[in-house]
Amino acid sequence: MADVPARTEIGVTTGPIRGSKKVHVGPLGVAMREIHLDPSSGEPPLRVYDPSGPYTDANARIDIMAGLPQLRRPWIDARGDVEAYDGRELRPEDNGQLGPDRSGGVPQFPNPVRRPLRAKAGMNLSQMHYARRGIITPEMEYVATRENLGREMLRDYKRDGESFGASIPDYVTPEFVRDEVARGRAIIPNNVNHPESEPMAIGRNFLVKINANIGNSAVASNVAAEVDKLVWSIRWGADTVMDLSTGRNIHDTREWIIRNSPVPIGTVPIYQALEKVGGIAEDLTWEVFRDTLIEQAEQGVDYFTIHAGVRLPYIPMTAKRVTGIVSRGGSIMAKWCLAHHKESFLYERFDEITEIMKAYDIAYSLGDGLRPGSIADANDEAQFSELYTLGELTHRAWAQDVQVMIEGPGHVPMHKIKQNMEKQLEVCGEAPFYTLGPLTTDIAPGYDHITSGIGAAMIGWYGTAMLCYVTPKEHLGLPDRDDVKVGVVTYKLAAHAADLAKGHPAAQMRDDALSRARFDFRWRDQFNLSLDPETAEDYHDQTLPAEGAKTAHFCSMCGPKFCSMKITAEVREFAAKQNQSADTFIAADAGDAERALFASGKGSVADAEAGMAEMSERFKAKGSEVYLPAAE
Amino acid sequence: MADVPARTEIGVTTGPIRGSKKVHVGPLGVAMREIHLDPSSGEPPLRVYDPSGPYTDANARIDIMAGLPQLRRPWIDARGDVEAYDGRELRPEDNGQLGPDRSGGVPQFPNPVRRPLRAKAGMNLSQMHYARRGIITPEMEYVATRENLGREMLRDYKRDGESFGASIPDYVTPEFVRDEVARGRAIIPNNVNHPESEPMAIGRNFLVKINANIGNSAVASNVAAEVDKLVWSIRWGADTVMDLSTGRNIHDTREWIIRNSPVPIGTVPIYQALEKVGGIAEDLTWEVFRDTLIEQAEQGVDYFTIHAGVRLPYIPMTAKRVTGIVSRGGSIMAKWCLAHHKESFLYERFDEITEIMKAYDIAYSLGDGLRPGSIADANDEAQFSELYTLGELTHRAWAQDVQVMIEGPGHVPMHKIKQNMEKQLEVCGEAPFYTLGPLTTDIAPGYDHITSGIGAAMIGWYGTAMLCYVTPKEHLGLPDRDDVKVGVVTYKLAAHAADLAKGHPAAQMRDDALSRARFDFRWRDQFNLSLDPETAEDYHDQTLPAEGAKTAHFCSMCGPKFCSMKITAEVREFAAKQNQSADTFIAADAGDAERALFASGKGSVADAEAGMAEMSERFKAKGSEVYLPAAE
Repeated sequence: MADVPARTEIGVTTGPIRGSKKVHVGPLGVAMREIHLDPSSGEPPLRVYDPSGPYTDANARIDIMAGLPQLRRPWIDARGDVEAYDGRELRPEDNGQLGPDRSGGVPQFPNPVRRPLRAKAGMNLSQMHYARRGIITPEMEYVATRENLGREMLRDYKRDGESFGASIPDYVTPEFVRDEVARGRAIIPNNVNHPESEPMAIGRNFLVKINANIGNSAVASNVAAEVDKLVWSIRWGADTVMDLSTGRNIHDTREWIIRNSPVPIGTVPIYQALEKVGGIAEDLTWEVFRDTLIEQAEQGVDYFTIHAGVRLPYIPMTAKRVTGIVSRGGSIMAKWCLAHHKESFLYERFDEITEIMKAYDIAYSLGDGLRPGSIADANDEAQFSELYTLGELTHRAWAQDVQVMIEGPGHVPMHKIKQNMEKQLEVCGEAPFYTLGPLTTDIAPGYDHITSGIGAAMIGWYGTAMLCYVTPKEHLGLPDRDDVKVGVVTYKLAAHAADLAKGHPAAQMRDDALSRARFDFRWRDQFNLSLDPETAEDYHDQTLPAEGAKTAHFCSMCGPKFCSMKITAEVREFAAKQNQSADTFIAADAGDAERALFASGKGSVADAEAGMAEMSERFKAKGSEVYLPAAE
Repeated sequence: MADVPARTEIGVTTGPIRGSKKVHVGPLGVAMREIHLDPSSGEPPLRVYDPSGPYTDANARIDIMAGLPQLRRPWIDARGDVEAYDGRELRPEDNGQLGPDRSGGVPQFPNPVRRPLRAKAGMNLSQMHYARRGIITPEMEYVATRENLGREMLRDYKRDGESFGASIPDYVTPEFVRDEVARGRAIIPNNVNHPESEPMAIGRNFLVKINANIGNSAVASNVAAEVDKLVWSIRWGADTVMDLSTGRNIHDTREWIIRNSPVPIGTVPIYQALEKVGGIAEDLTWEVFRDTLIEQAEQGVDYFTIHAGVRLPYIPMTAKRVTGIVSRGGSIMAKWCLAHHKESFLYERFDEITEIMKAYDIAYSLGDGLRPGSIADANDEAQFSELYTLGELTHRAWAQDVQVMIEGPGHVPMHKIKQNMEKQLEVCGEAPFYTLGPLTTDIAPGYDHITSGIGAAMIGWYGTAMLCYVTPKEHLGLPDRDDVKVGVVTYKLAAHAADLAKGHPAAQMRDDALSRARFDFRWRDQFNLSLDPETAEDYHDQTLPAEGAKTAHFCSMCGPKFCSMKITAEVREFAAKQNQSADTFIAADAGDAERALFASGKGSVADAEAGMAEMSERFKAKGSEVYLPAAE
């Protein structure tokens, strides 16, 4: 199926990803994608995790002007702990305007939230709060079904991987989800004012997730482009999206994004607060910041990045760095602290912020404002000092049953990545880690989706729960549509490589299905099973455009006359022809010899020669019957 | 400097990489590239490793029809152990022709080698042979100077990295190179009939190298395109190039490539041998193969991939695999062995092949014909059985003082990569490992330069000496010029990330120089210091095309009004203003607290709180004077 543009003023890409269809599983209708394989494969459709929402559902009618259906609203109402109230009035400064004049503004979303929900007096809406009281919410049930993807298809599956102490279950039950949320090892970010979202979990015992950043800036972008990027990024696999808009129209842009997003939306509220005080960091006040939190809470932001770990005493530790403070939020707070010679108001008012979080069920993403911005600054004193404070704040948030994840670096050479994961797990009580990259070298601007994809795959393997994507434009400019896709696909493959290495029960099914398709020359299946079917098919067609080549039993690498996979097929037929399966008997013998060598742990060349000789002997002894021509 | 096309019938890209100039260092005139920085940086030019040869030398006159100057010829002659002789006559089948009719052929290189060199009777030309007799050759001296890159600029450099037992010296002496070659831990591939090459070393105690594959196939490509790809791939950093041509015109194409290559050229001779017998694997004979080795030895091929480890008893072990045998050479030999029910002639005739290798100084690249072609097949019995045989053959080659490296996988999930490196080091006596990727997942065709770049960076860190690149077209089609560049740059950044993590003394200099340029908003320096200046500048200009933006003290991510780096600069000025440097005093105190926590290895949150509290106390106590306004 080709991409079908939706009938809306704001164009977004809709329609199923080719070769796939949307399915809804179980009583909650959990959304998944089914990739259909050629009948010749004799294989059932493969189900894959699918954050793309109704946009890839052939039966869904998409209307950007109306927003998505409110999937979770009945669940929220049923709990009886929320009240609707008259929301905060929109003010010109919310969109960076100095007065009522809206010229230079963007169109307002037709039907914004006017009567937002919040907790009734004394109530706590956080999923962690329910979990700790033993309540399994529909959100938790949805997550359990969603994460179980394919596991039921695993009959005699052998667990294989190194999980570094994670507790990945063979099967995810709603009770397991509840327990992980109660312990703080996983979060389900979903503001009651974002009922359009499909519940998802971020935690090291679940599939590794990825985040895509979008948002307009002071110098570029517009609302239509941002909504398009939202839909485009989840189409290719983004599990959450952060709106990092700066400059004007922040409020209106965010409304369009949230109303049309099936995935959790995160923001960095200090960005908008800074705009409200004309970009002068020292003019920031707790009141302006608090007002911004309420504004965004009412719109439905699911998680807030709060840089409360940037404390006054740590700031001078950055003076000797090669790249100082590179986090925008971190540097805003650093400037405020220095200008006032005061401790950060985010740190001082942390418990008041937590009160707001629990009234809407917003999760903390504790920002790493002092993360290293270069290889030279990795794992330094400023970075780890802040991490210890984030650990302290994690426990303060948990004391009020509020969900927390921790943001991580940044720029880190490979040999220093593991220490980041280990310290975070230890100091933050296994709260989910959410890292940016890390970039493993600084010398490849233009390729930082790759320098960071390397670090992302590794830290995901070590235990990071969500990876924040990096696009090819990192350090150079604002990502366009193509950059967003490349960034998302790169991070999807890194997250998947991490799931494989951790030994996630169902992760390898897709690799194996694609490998079988490759071996059988089922080109279409190979394209459809890949993370980016369009690019895979396009690359194939650049060399062999003929339609026939899609079914040809050769590829452009070897050509028709000779093909290694064809020869392997012959080897297989040959082995199959034997009265006794060749691989069971030769390999079994070889196996004994080899296993002995491997077990000895020091298979010297002498050992090897001995093993080989032994095998050759046995082989020659039995060879004649193994290789008895089928004819005879 | 822009790219200047050479004045030749076959167009290649010449001229310096922008912002750089070629320099020749020391008595041997070792080629390096100097990147010039803006005077405002107060930094000297940065020297980087440069395999691009005369093509990037503004003073060199390039003539593809004449080939490159014979840099090493005088060194070879001076040793007095070679003799020129009448080379083997060119035959139609060498180019896949059935008769004298050359229609469909490619133009012959105007001046091919007619009187090749070889060892005088009883002589051994291998660099390993000289090394073991205590002789330091000019090739070894050249390598020492080349590898020392930047080390002399390292005054108070702190070694930082995890090298997994490598022996990377602070300074590389010619004697160190000799010793590494003598031990077999490094190779210097340079056939006496390829005197145009600039000596380079492949070994785990030197910089990690990368290889690019080129070559026409039965279905595509031509000689001009291949020569262009050669020059293009070394321009961006390929340290060696393999000509994997199949189909027709193999001999002539290779002549053009070798005569114009400043880097070692590798081949897989069995490919051409197969063409000589009409593509029928079972018709291969030792005589045809031997004839092909001589043909290629006389042309100047520097290393041969020989799949001598694919032994008869191992073949049935592949029958149960998901993707069987994916190595072309491996499957050719598998088919031959099965068809004849015989042990591989490559294994049986190994010592005769070694005799040829030492007569021309050709290095072995022992092929992994049974490497896994999918995640499912990684680290299996067939793969490791072959590896043990490669270990046996390594020692047999060393017994004749012939240089060896070992080829490795393939497709391997992250948690199984290290085992590959450890087994190879153990079984092959630390002979250099030369791996393809490995790909860490199978689900991203179209992005396999990235799925494999992840594995390549990791295995390079663990000890792999050379990484064979993978392009975005892997599994799908033949790489074009753009794919080659993306593949090379991706592998350069992976190799560099590995050098950083191993703690290579000079590796971080480039990262730090680029990070300083980034922090100072020296955009041009940032572009020029990157692996791909053109792409970096292009990406920047897509958002901020104005020339002024090249010197603007902001970027498109934050815009002019607010910039985190500007704020950091203020933090730094602030700290500098203190009568006592803030970071030395606050950080020193904090340092004690933090170091105590880190040292305790179990900095619990309680510890952390204590540490933080202690620091806050000290800070408050001294705060007033730390933050004494400069004015007072």
